[in-house]
Amino acid sequence: MRLSNFFLPVVKDAPSHAEIASHQLMLRSGMIRQSGAGIYSWLPLGFKVLKNIERIVREEMGRAGAIEMLMPTLQQADLWRESGRYDDYGEEMLRITDRSGRDMLYGPTNEELITEIFRAYVKSYKQLPLNLYHQQWKFRDEIRPRFGVMRGREFYMKDAYSFDLDEAGARLSYQKMFAAYLNTFHRLGVTAIPMKADPGPIGGDLSHEFLILSESGESAIFCDKAILDVPVPGLDFDFEDQDALAREMEKRTQYYAATDEKHDAEAFARVPKERQIAARGIEVGHIFYFGTKYSEPMKATVQNKDGQLVDIHGGSYGIGVSRLAGAIIEACHDEAGIVWPASIAPFDVGLISMRPKDEATATACEAAYKELQAAGFDPLYDETDERAGSKFARMDLIGLPWQIIIGPKAAEKGRVELKSRRDGARIECSLVEAITRMKAA
Amino acid sequence: MRLSNFFLPVVKDAPSHAEIASHQLMLRSGMIRQSGAGIYSWLPLGFKVLKNIERIVREEMGRAGAIEMLMPTLQQADLWRESGRYDDYGEEMLRITDRSGRDMLYGPTNEELITEIFRAYVKSYKQLPLNLYHQQWKFRDEIRPRFGVMRGREFYMKDAYSFDLDEAGARLSYQKMFAAYLNTFHRLGVTAIPMKADPGPIGGDLSHEFLILSESGESAIFCDKAILDVPVPGLDFDFEDQDALAREMEKRTQYYAATDEKHDAEAFARVPKERQIAARGIEVGHIFYFGTKYSEPMKATVQNKDGQLVDIHGGSYGIGVSRLAGAIIEACHDEAGIVWPASIAPFDVGLISMRPKDEATATACEAAYKELQAAGFDPLYDETDERAGSKFARMDLIGLPWQIIIGPKAAEKGRVELKSRRDGARIECSLVEAITRMKAA
Repeated sequence: MRLSNFFLPVVKDAPSHAEIASHQLMLRSGMIRQSGAGIYSWLPLGFKVLKNIERIVREEMGRAGAIEMLMPTLQQADLWRESGRYDDYGEEMLRITDRSGRDMLYGPTNEELITEIFRAYVKSYKQLPLNLYHQQWKFRDEIRPRFGVMRGREFYMKDAYSFDLDEAGARLSYQKMFAAYLNTFHRLGVTAIPMKADPGPIGGDLSHEFLILSESGESAIFCDKAILDVPVPGLDFDFEDQDALAREMEKRTQYYAATDEKHDAEAFARVPKERQIAARGIEVGHIFYFGTKYSEPMKATVQNKDGQLVDIHGGSYGIGVSRLAGAIIEACHDEAGIVWPASIAPFDVGLISMRPKDEATATACEAAYKELQAAGFDPLYDETDERAGSKFARMDLIGLPWQIIIGPKAAEKGRVELKSRRDGARIECSLVEAITRMKAA
Repeated sequence: MRLSNFFLPVVKDAPSHAEIASHQLMLRSGMIRQSGAGIYSWLPLGFKVLKNIERIVREEMGRAGAIEMLMPTLQQADLWRESGRYDDYGEEMLRITDRSGRDMLYGPTNEELITEIFRAYVKSYKQLPLNLYHQQWKFRDEIRPRFGVMRGREFYMKDAYSFDLDEAGARLSYQKMFAAYLNTFHRLGVTAIPMKADPGPIGGDLSHEFLILSESGESAIFCDKAILDVPVPGLDFDFEDQDALAREMEKRTQYYAATDEKHDAEAFARVPKERQIAARGIEVGHIFYFGTKYSEPMKATVQNKDGQLVDIHGGSYGIGVSRLAGAIIEACHDEAGIVWPASIAPFDVGLISMRPKDEATATACEAAYKELQAAGFDPLYDETDERAGSKFARMDLIGLPWQIIIGPKAAEKGRVELKSRRDGARIECSLVEAITRMKAA
């Protein structure tokens, strides 16, 4: 993409209401614009990041056997009356009345709706296990939305729902999601620690939150440092291997890790002093096993092998996709701006023309632009007339993993300057070598 | 995808309220489920189709130079008060009050919101032209939603917005979208006829609807048959060639084509009798040039070359993405079910095992499944134990372009049966030949 054809409204100063780094950086780099209290528009740069996160979440859900679909944003109040949550949910639920006087709501989560879909079609244990998910906008009418997309009201969530014949099956489904989440966050370039959690309004007796360590996190967390060193299952993990699934959970649950809600000071004191982490974290995922909490009142039953009707055992599994854009920036930024993990960077590399009006420079840049695309990269090509200083500052701010800089001297020699955004290291080399280095990284 | 791992709830009979073929077929084939009046959940099969349509729309918008972003579903009423449409829009606008008493609405379209974003960042003619678009859920509170996703209340729309310094520039932007739409619908496997249209609540003086011929269409249309034979611009079309852009419009506007709203019986009478088409059509796209209708009240101005502030000239360009799933089925089905155009089919090919318990058959099918994937196809592999008849019926119903059928006899000979869904032709051949034929089609 040529910068002059793109829409990248970088702004100098973040508004004073932006309290944390990710919110400031997303506003300054032209990723988002506030369109209401806790409601954001995703400008082209931010949109590309959101789509990249969505894609990785999709790939890892698919690898774990979950099937994608899409439920609507608006739901009928009557469904929530069946589960009893219409009255329980409180003021965070945005209640709506349509022109015909029907009570509706903007879905804050989808346990009821997916259970209605399930019970309409699934009648036999032979159709189980089943895990259906979607990525859709949700609304929670927070009284105090803040921190940009990290605690917005309209937010983009991946929510999966598993259906099993019994508790043993449901625990397997839970373990699959547990393992898939570890791989997902790892691919997104962050370490998310699974911690025992309170199920809250979703319900159930088994629940883990996944948290990224960050000073700006809203949750106080306590854990054993050793949990950070456990390797993720990996992309060749066999999700049908029940022993391996159990091991992935055990490897982590053997170490102390809890949010303040579930914190046990005595148990934490038994962690070796040098491994005690008391810090803050950002919740980016939350998984629940809730048994028959929804299937029982909503009559989601299947026939078991003996022909008896039994309530299915369910779980739900959320990832805050839009929140992750902010959370990852909290973990990945420096003084100059964002430092994107390569997997979700909005472009792979920034190509900076130091003097677009110089013919040799322009020719070298145009050739490099085409060659980068041919090599499979998605480059952002700054061919504007601006000062070099503001070009560098902007490219650092938006945080692409690599920069390729071409000025008249380099162009003459057939060389480029390759800069790594992460460590700032610059080398002069041929374009071919730059491409080789970027591919090897 | 193995059918036993997928969620494909095919149902025997469509409910009696489904009046038209596409609605019946989408319900029967397990593409959608109604989740409220005019509100649908997209089950996995339908979701794949929706995503395929979205992808083609995205590719063609990008080719025409439009930049993708994403605006939220909920908007602030105050923005619509600026344009004057908050009161004008009528009861189709779903009005919402949040817990703090703010007036909000579920966006039925986004002229106001995109104009607010534009005016915040764009100050100079040098940043123009600009065309920003998104694909997002919209809500229109139809009093009588019907025909499934064809006239739903919550629907998925692509809406693009162009910003130009003057009318001449805006007309060019309009022509680009006109040409892009022709390519888009062509790639989606249908012929959409551009027709002069009333701008309605969007406003302006230049507007075209794009309609697909269909008996179940809600609009009466009148056109010269010759317009159907004009070739589309094609994927190598140069969107920067102003003459070519003008020609693409002229090639079509030279022929009579109008919906009943704009119908001129006298002009139609001058079309040669044998070329007169009086039929019904489904609106799948609508484009508008509305000049300064929004920029003037909302003060979206830029500096021109002389340093003067001028109101920008705007246009907006919609495609009904979710409606298209239904509209394409209206154009592409037969007695046995859906007949998907290859570009948007939910899977490329259905692989049917005639006797999964026969070892030779199972081995041949597993090998074919892997080879199809290796050849770049996305196969749906029916390895279930059901009767052959119901397997065939289901595969015909869901309308994948190709079926590969393997039974014990064929397996023994190392052959497969290749069936084309469109014409029902079957041939026996090797898998390699089947792959070659599918690739060549």
